[in-house]
Amino acid sequence: MTGRDGGADLAPIGNSPVVVLVRPQLADNIGAVARAMANGGLFHLRLVAPRDGWPQEHAWRTASGADRILDSCTVHETVADAVADMHHVYATCPRPRHIVKPVLTARGAAAELRQVTARDLRCAILFGPERAGLDNDDMACADALVRFPLNPAFNSLNLAQAVIVMAYEWWTAQDQTIPRTLMTNETRIANKGELENFLRHLVDQLDACGFLKNLPKRPGMTRNIRHFFQRGEVTEQELRTLHGIVTELALGRRLRGRLEPIEPA
Amino acid sequence: MTGRDGGADLAPIGNSPVVVLVRPQLADNIGAVARAMANGGLFHLRLVAPRDGWPQEHAWRTASGADRILDSCTVHETVADAVADMHHVYATCPRPRHIVKPVLTARGAAAELRQVTARDLRCAILFGPERAGLDNDDMACADALVRFPLNPAFNSLNLAQAVIVMAYEWWTAQDQTIPRTLMTNETRIANKGELENFLRHLVDQLDACGFLKNLPKRPGMTRNIRHFFQRGEVTEQELRTLHGIVTELALGRRLRGRLEPIEPA
Repeated sequence: MTGRDGGADLAPIGNSPVVVLVRPQLADNIGAVARAMANGGLFHLRLVAPRDGWPQEHAWRTASGADRILDSCTVHETVADAVADMHHVYATCPRPRHIVKPVLTARGAAAELRQVTARDLRCAILFGPERAGLDNDDMACADALVRFPLNPAFNSLNLAQAVIVMAYEWWTAQDQTIPRTLMTNETRIANKGELENFLRHLVDQLDACGFLKNLPKRPGMTRNIRHFFQRGEVTEQELRTLHGIVTELALGRRLRGRLEPIEPA
Repeated sequence: MTGRDGGADLAPIGNSPVVVLVRPQLADNIGAVARAMANGGLFHLRLVAPRDGWPQEHAWRTASGADRILDSCTVHETVADAVADMHHVYATCPRPRHIVKPVLTARGAAAELRQVTARDLRCAILFGPERAGLDNDDMACADALVRFPLNPAFNSLNLAQAVIVMAYEWWTAQDQTIPRTLMTNETRIANKGELENFLRHLVDQLDACGFLKNLPKRPGMTRNIRHFFQRGEVTEQELRTLHGIVTELALGRRLRGRLEPIEPA
């Protein structure tokens, strides 16, 4: 404990998985892990035999406000001690080992963590030391391994990077955000009638200015213009702006026609 | 360019999206971004107006071997210059802004990037400066925004953390790894006949030692034992070990019975 009062309100906790850092080396990384945990809605941190002891001021500096996670983190001598009150333990492990063990992707593990925690069982995720990763005895404490699918030619992850991927998957496993939407803020998506009003306005003005004077080509040209404006969602506000653009361009042309006659070619 | 020869072989590149760091501040972060890109199979890096100039030695130190990404990265004066040869541009943006723009999740964006790059169109993903993020003019250069679903009470991501999430989604969008599997290495999953052989061996020995001598309870007890061993996949090697355990325990009991008689209670 450092006795600090600071740090962000990290929002409700519930039965979220415990992150266990096994023999972490750098305090900077422990802080960055706390920040990554808060990003993904993980709040319980345990340290097993941190190399340089605990607490360490440096960790709070890199936590960017995730102080409460560090303030309430506990220190344990062994992995077995750290997970004694857990029901399921997952061990992150980038490399295949010569053991018989269930292996999950990060996404598969996140889905399972959601199911298991919903049954009021407590889960922990082990992350190994920066240099060597978890050893065989650590992994023997786990129910299953988690191996993120990543570029096999370059799959060494920084500790906080490994935690953010797992925390992000934990968060998105319950997230209902629509994969693609048009953010409209103060306006709304225009309906087809509103779009048709604009297209009629446009075509009327194009007829008036002579842009569509080639009558055999006129149907094809108007269709192409329609195709362009029909391509995606347009907002009611954007249609009003487009109405204004057409009106002003047409007016400007008329004024220019009267005030500043264009030189004959 | 630093003239280094080092760095990992980062594997084939293909038409993968370009990462554009807009006005990045810290060389350490640029290096960490290169590492995160290599993790997720992104290899093209562009910098727009890096605060402290380019190249900077510090970046290579934090890249952990992703040197080639830094060696071949290019520097541009404006976002418009950096994306002039691109066909689609995505802007990462954690906060809602008062603009009308398509907004994608990281996963939605990754799926779209896979589709668009498969059509031989070139895509860029913009990441803003550490402190302030992308400004409104930057975002006006983009087709769509990418907003990661994360804890809204704590959603400020470190730059390299934002890049690893996007790179991880890019990688997993084409990844076929089975979400959960039993890693068996040198052995294989036992079939039901092999399991039945073991269960018969066990029950025979339990009969012989008297564990099942209560005949009315015997059927229920053997079923409970069967339920336990049927719970999940077991390997052929594990069954051989279990056979050996039962044999040795039974033999030990017989030897002990002969050599070291247990004291009567």
